[in-house]
Amino acid sequence: MGSAAIDELRNNASVKIKRYTVPGIKDLPVACKKLINEQSCDIVMALGMPGSDPKDKICAHEASTGIIHAQLMTDTHIIEIFVHEDEAKDEKTLAWLMDKRAREHAHNVIKLMLRPYDLEREAGTGQRQGYEDAGPVGL
Amino acid sequence: MGSAAIDELRNNASVKIKRYTVPGIKDLPVACKKLINEQSCDIVMALGMPGSDPKDKICAHEASTGIIHAQLMTDTHIIEIFVHEDEAKDEKTLAWLMDKRAREHAHNVIKLMLRPYDLEREAGTGQRQGYEDAGPVGL
Amino acid sequence: MGSAAIDELRNNASVKIKRYTVPGIKDLPVACKKLINEQSCDIVMALGMPGSDPKDKICAHEASTGIIHAQLMTDTHIIEIFVHEDEAKDEKTLAWLMDKRAREHAHNVIKLMLRPYDLEREAGTGQRQGYEDAGPVGL
Amino acid sequence: MGSAAIDELRNNASVKIKRYTVPGIKDLPVACKKLINEQSCDIVMALGMPGSDPKDKICAHEASTGIIHAQLMTDTHIIEIFVHEDEAKDEKTLAWLMDKRAREHAHNVIKLMLRPYDLEREAGTGQRQGYEDAGPVGL
Amino acid sequence: MGSAAIDELRNNASVKIKRYTVPGIKDLPVACKKLINEQSCDIVMALGMPGSDPKDKICAHEASTGIIHAQLMTDTHIIEIFVHEDEAKDEKTLAWLMDKRAREHAHNVIKLMLRPYDLEREAGTGQRQGYEDAGPVGL
Repeated sequence: MGSAAIDELRNNASVKIKRYTVPGIKDLPVACKKLINEQSCDIVMALGMPGSDPKDKICAHEASTGIIHAQLMTDTHIIEIFVHEDEAKDEKTLAWLMDKRAREHAHNVIKLMLRPYDLEREAGTGQRQGYEDAGPVGL
Repeated sequence: MGSAAIDELRNNASVKIKRYTVPGIKDLPVACKKLINEQSCDIVMALGMPGSDPKDKICAHEASTGIIHAQLMTDTHIIEIFVHEDEAKDEKTLAWLMDKRAREHAHNVIKLMLRPYDLEREAGTGQRQGYEDAGPVGL
Repeated sequence: MGSAAIDELRNNASVKIKRYTVPGIKDLPVACKKLINEQSCDIVMALGMPGSDPKDKICAHEASTGIIHAQLMTDTHIIEIFVHEDEAKDEKTLAWLMDKRAREHAHNVIKLMLRPYDLEREAGTGQRQGYEDAGPVGL
Repeated sequence: MGSAAIDELRNNASVKIKRYTVPGIKDLPVACKKLINEQSCDIVMALGMPGSDPKDKICAHEASTGIIHAQLMTDTHIIEIFVHEDEAKDEKTLAWLMDKRAREHAHNVIKLMLRPYDLEREAGTGQRQGYEDAGPVGL
Repeated sequence: MGSAAIDELRNNASVKIKRYTVPGIKDLPVACKKLINEQSCDIVMALGMPGSDPKDKICAHEASTGIIHAQLMTDTHIIEIFVHEDEAKDEKTLAWLMDKRAREHAHNVIKLMLRPYDLEREAGTGQRQGYEDAGPVGL
């Protein structure tokens, strides 16, 4: 997923990228904070793949809570991109989903930093990262 | 929802409004904090529409926890306005609910900032944002 | 509930009271913190009535977590008094419970601030706020 | 439980003890922090008895989370000693468990402060506070 | 588990190790923070074995949340290594799993501190600590 995100960022913006790999998703919050505080990153993408076991779901919740906390401590966006192992019916779909979601979130990062009006225009139109968009709610 | 809230605020008070759109609800806490710290907002409305999947419910819980945390870090109110995808039986009702809840919360924002005695008078009368009010508890 | 608590406080101690009404229970944590930091309150009573829907239960949990956090940030007690909509079998009992619990917690506030030895004497005797006390555990 | 813990501490170490009683378990986190910050306590024992209702279980979780937070804010140990109302089959066993657990945790407090090597020696031997120890895992 | 981790660290790197044993897993977060703040540790391994009771699962969740918080407060990695009592079918497998997981996490610690590129190379290849690796997702 990291490579897909980096590829998409490089193809669509002129950015300097730091990559930091950690053993598990619960190591992500502090890693993100270190990238912000020690490597002066302006925004971070936190990519991970939680397992399908109930224990793994709790780990993902703990990691997410920590990632939100890290953002609040630094006033800096950290875009969480988790693909849950049980989100796809087979390995091929899972690999496709990981690639697609990483790339679409990379676009969100670019919009958030460089083109905020694009995000505003899309708000409420049911954009989903990975699968088909849900579409806007009809009035 | 953002447009409905802004419309209602503009029609009922003389306020300066900053709009900040983020990709997902988990990006709301830090966005709210940035609006307070970097844009000097006195109060923030955080609007979002969590999906109906159990995973989405957990995301909403994480976002809410972060929004409360952001308030405590800034001593500033952030009014959370979430409409859950499964709160209405069809798309038309959902759209109606989103509009209505956004507008009623905009009124709460105005009361909290400008007319605190109105809120006090309504306390314990079972006001609900969106659907019918629940009414006061009979003695 | 607010009026019952205030009535009981006034009847049993000489205290100065600030009242601050918020739209929902998730607005309580920051409101309590503002009362402490901006209004110099020595102790706060946070009164609310969570609904009976599962979503409301999660809101109550988020509010409670925030109220504990606000206390830790200020080294000040905030006494949470929640009456859940589903704690009573009918509206009349609910109203009675709200009044009774608010008054009993008002007494706890007075003890915590002025008569700590009364609390110590009652510890482990199964005091409950609202319904019948549970009684001490027999040895 | 408080008396049992104090008795055991006094019989096994020369310590100065401050006792602070609060109305409910959710008042424990800030009380512990105040004992550390305002009364200069080096370690705190937080004793409580959560009820058996699901709502009480959530309260216990909120209190525990706050107690861990208070420790992190002060770099000071707070030993949580909760006996859940539903941990024993009858009142007599419950009273016995409360006494036993309080005393065994008092020993842990002494070890943590004065005899850290005793704790290290027992690590992984399945010590439980209250009921029978679980025993070490066989290799 | 502590001994296995220390053994593996000593055999694979030249490091200075501080050992700190606490009575229960909920005492781990502050202990880790004290090792960082008071003993100047650059990284911490937090080893524990949560029980199989639902209450124990909640304790583990609280401890994990606190460990992530401690990392964010110190900008320092704390590698959590929990083996849940119910992860293995018998005591022998459990003992094997504890030893294996502690050793594999010790390797992760070394990689995180000294050989970050090894972690990057393994990212997305489904490494699991203890049981068989899950393998990479096929494209």
